[in-house]
Amino acid sequence: MNRKMVFNTVGMMLVAEAALLLLPTAVALIYGEACAWSLAASAGIALAAGLLLRLLFRPENRLIYAREGFVTVALAWLLLSAAGALPFFLSGEIPSYVDAFFETVSGFTTTGASILTNVESMSRGLLFWRSFTHWVGGMGVLVFVMAIVPGSNDRSMHILRAEMPGPVVGKLLPRAKDTASILYKIYVGLTLLQIVLMLLGGMPLYESVVHAFGTAGTGGFGVKADSIAGYSPYLQWVITVFMFLFGVNFNLYYLLLVRRFRAAVQSSEFWYYLGIVLVSVSLITINILPLYQSFSEALRLSAFQVSSIITTTGYATADFNLWPEFSKSLLLLLMMVGACAGSTGGGLKVSRAVMLIKTIGREIRHLLHPRSVNSVRFEGKQVDGATLKSVSSYFAIYMVCMVAVYMLLSLDAFDLETNLSATFACFNNIGPGLGAVGPTASYALYSPLSKIVLSLAMLMGRLEIFPLLLTLSPATWMKK
Amino acid sequence: MNRKMVFNTVGMMLVAEAALLLLPTAVALIYGEACAWSLAASAGIALAAGLLLRLLFRPENRLIYAREGFVTVALAWLLLSAAGALPFFLSGEIPSYVDAFFETVSGFTTTGASILTNVESMSRGLLFWRSFTHWVGGMGVLVFVMAIVPGSNDRSMHILRAEMPGPVVGKLLPRAKDTASILYKIYVGLTLLQIVLMLLGGMPLYESVVHAFGTAGTGGFGVKADSIAGYSPYLQWVITVFMFLFGVNFNLYYLLLVRRFRAAVQSSEFWYYLGIVLVSVSLITINILPLYQSFSEALRLSAFQVSSIITTTGYATADFNLWPEFSKSLLLLLMMVGACAGSTGGGLKVSRAVMLIKTIGREIRHLLHPRSVNSVRFEGKQVDGATLKSVSSYFAIYMVCMVAVYMLLSLDAFDLETNLSATFACFNNIGPGLGAVGPTASYALYSPLSKIVLSLAMLMGRLEIFPLLLTLSPATWMKK
Repeated sequence: MNRKMVFNTVGMMLVAEAALLLLPTAVALIYGEACAWSLAASAGIALAAGLLLRLLFRPENRLIYAREGFVTVALAWLLLSAAGALPFFLSGEIPSYVDAFFETVSGFTTTGASILTNVESMSRGLLFWRSFTHWVGGMGVLVFVMAIVPGSNDRSMHILRAEMPGPVVGKLLPRAKDTASILYKIYVGLTLLQIVLMLLGGMPLYESVVHAFGTAGTGGFGVKADSIAGYSPYLQWVITVFMFLFGVNFNLYYLLLVRRFRAAVQSSEFWYYLGIVLVSVSLITINILPLYQSFSEALRLSAFQVSSIITTTGYATADFNLWPEFSKSLLLLLMMVGACAGSTGGGLKVSRAVMLIKTIGREIRHLLHPRSVNSVRFEGKQVDGATLKSVSSYFAIYMVCMVAVYMLLSLDAFDLETNLSATFACFNNIGPGLGAVGPTASYALYSPLSKIVLSLAMLMGRLEIFPLLLTLSPATWMKK
Repeated sequence: MNRKMVFNTVGMMLVAEAALLLLPTAVALIYGEACAWSLAASAGIALAAGLLLRLLFRPENRLIYAREGFVTVALAWLLLSAAGALPFFLSGEIPSYVDAFFETVSGFTTTGASILTNVESMSRGLLFWRSFTHWVGGMGVLVFVMAIVPGSNDRSMHILRAEMPGPVVGKLLPRAKDTASILYKIYVGLTLLQIVLMLLGGMPLYESVVHAFGTAGTGGFGVKADSIAGYSPYLQWVITVFMFLFGVNFNLYYLLLVRRFRAAVQSSEFWYYLGIVLVSVSLITINILPLYQSFSEALRLSAFQVSSIITTTGYATADFNLWPEFSKSLLLLLMMVGACAGSTGGGLKVSRAVMLIKTIGREIRHLLHPRSVNSVRFEGKQVDGATLKSVSSYFAIYMVCMVAVYMLLSLDAFDLETNLSATFACFNNIGPGLGAVGPTASYALYSPLSKIVLSLAMLMGRLEIFPLLLTLSPATWMKK
């Protein structure tokens, strides 16, 4: 374990965070808000902490393996959240540090779960920072998935790349920068396009930028108490489409950019993703039709919520807590499925879900014809046994971790629906759940212990479980 | 597929059922109840149907493989339930045939979920038959696990035998009879012992026999509206202990019988099972202590419910629906874990749950030391990779099937807690759930569609999923 390199890198990221904090500081100054000093002070603290880490840990060799990559990422997400929570806490707008930490973890992990009971009373500078963490977190995830994961030899992680002929990354250092730069360009381009389309729909600049941040990171923090419900149908459709787009594997955009259309069209994960969305939207539209005045309204609300939940964004235009049980259950199921691998979305990922279902078919075929060789095909290729095994065991670990989070939450005073959906919504980085944590409510009433558990759940879900488990495991830190 | 042999065997089982129906007929005659004729008529119908099947399907060769074993078992459970439902329906005591079918599937699968809203208004003959199906179903499960499963080459099924040095069964036919006879002796012996202990506690003979049936099969059908709550603490403790005992791997009793004490003591599954029970009882006792007057009462209620749920029996001495959320969640978790492999209990099985947890440890170790060989040990032996893979994929299939059942249920009018716990309680063969299907309620209000879905869920859970999937799969029935 090359600790010095790990802490040195994390230090560098804290310095970068200090720079990022200058943007919301500027926003606060423009609006003449008092929170500017707390943002500037936090930038100073992050800078000092970062420089201190870089001073204390000077690596003799810069050689790192996937393990160091994992630990670096987990520590970075933890420490950047700890520092990113300072502006909320120092300004006094979120009086409890645990709450501020929860909110910031929720931001960086692009979850969007909030402890704020009245978002409209917050200053604009802090709300800008809150949404900006989504955008930065989304970028971080893309680099994590495309540059750090491939260095690992764990096949369950490999799934994240969804074995497509995209930007191939071999070793961690040299080509990671190239990959990152392509991804950033696509990410920035899509974000700008969304901002322009929302401006054209009459949304003010500040709100357009903030909502584009929340959409791009598939996060879900907004600035209105009713999330997106108050905006025009045009704006709701724009956000619906962009949520869907940010849930697509970014390799696909790369392929489109380099005009390899045939390869792009052959992406099975995309077609499964589109299919799941279309079927869910249809079923929910039919199910909720009696509640609304017109078909077009039911379709718009259904499409928005499905797109928001499957991409793990978490924006809302309707209180789906009041929808029929079938629609609620379907949304709960979509929470688990999640978006495509290689996107900013969370959850189990469409590719893993598809392979799990295909495994069932294979097992049945195996029982029917014990001597035949049964293979599972995905993305036009045969999936080897080790990968399938990893997908199954990843799913088992995923479920066991969710059960553990759920059991700890059940020590709190809420009912089963609330606790279960809170677990789902945080672990899969969605945001709002059902019951007392539904789209019109917040996580404010949970105990500090539950908030810490949920913060860890968000981090675990965001980083595909292993990096956080690895970082929290004592064996990682023991000297040989 | 040797269809003739399959249907011939099922025909034989229907004839056996006809014989079994004579026992409740006798009980009804003793009590001078009108339902006697419906029981006798049903015996006649089962006999005729069985003989007809044997006449129509005369196998040329008696060679069968595991596949035929699976299909036979699934068909037998379905047809025996269809015929076993007749007495309830013909007597008019359960006016809907779907309800009668649900109740009988619940009996034979040793689930114990009931659609009866007033069990005490039923005649004694029919209640005797209802509980007797538990006892017969429990026997069937033991034979299924010990004699049919080993013939299969699916490693996930092998787990059911829990690789212990017990009565080894190789091929299906010759030694299956020996195995069955040993198991039946243990099963009958334990049942008789329980009847005697309950008689000593002052329970009337009829009730002792019926409750022993429900305990032995880990079923849970009783004859009182308040299940076991009205009986003395002594009787409650007797049932607690016997529920626990019937959840133990029957290989262990075999080892004790042949005085191989050391081998018996080395069963890790038993110690995990005991550990889970003791920890759960302690946690729940502490959690519910404020609700009850004394520590001993809280301990007794906690021990009873834990023993009842983990063994998937489903008797109740308290309305755990009113317990704190943590205790309810823990019980929900125990519903999934289930009893030991090779017992009459259902659920995922302790051995599978332990291996799933051990897999997590292995995955983390693998990330830490990618080049080291990490093995999982269970029952003192190294578990091979193929078995671990099967356990993980079995778990995935188990979850996907539960999700499917849950989604179909959510079309009904109940809330998430009710639907989710109904799915858990039926799929894992427990019986009562939470909410509207809690221990003081019944499944009566579900729609006929939901009742059929839940009946299939009970069968699927009881037969370890695959046999039913295999039987419902068209490919099984196609001619080569």
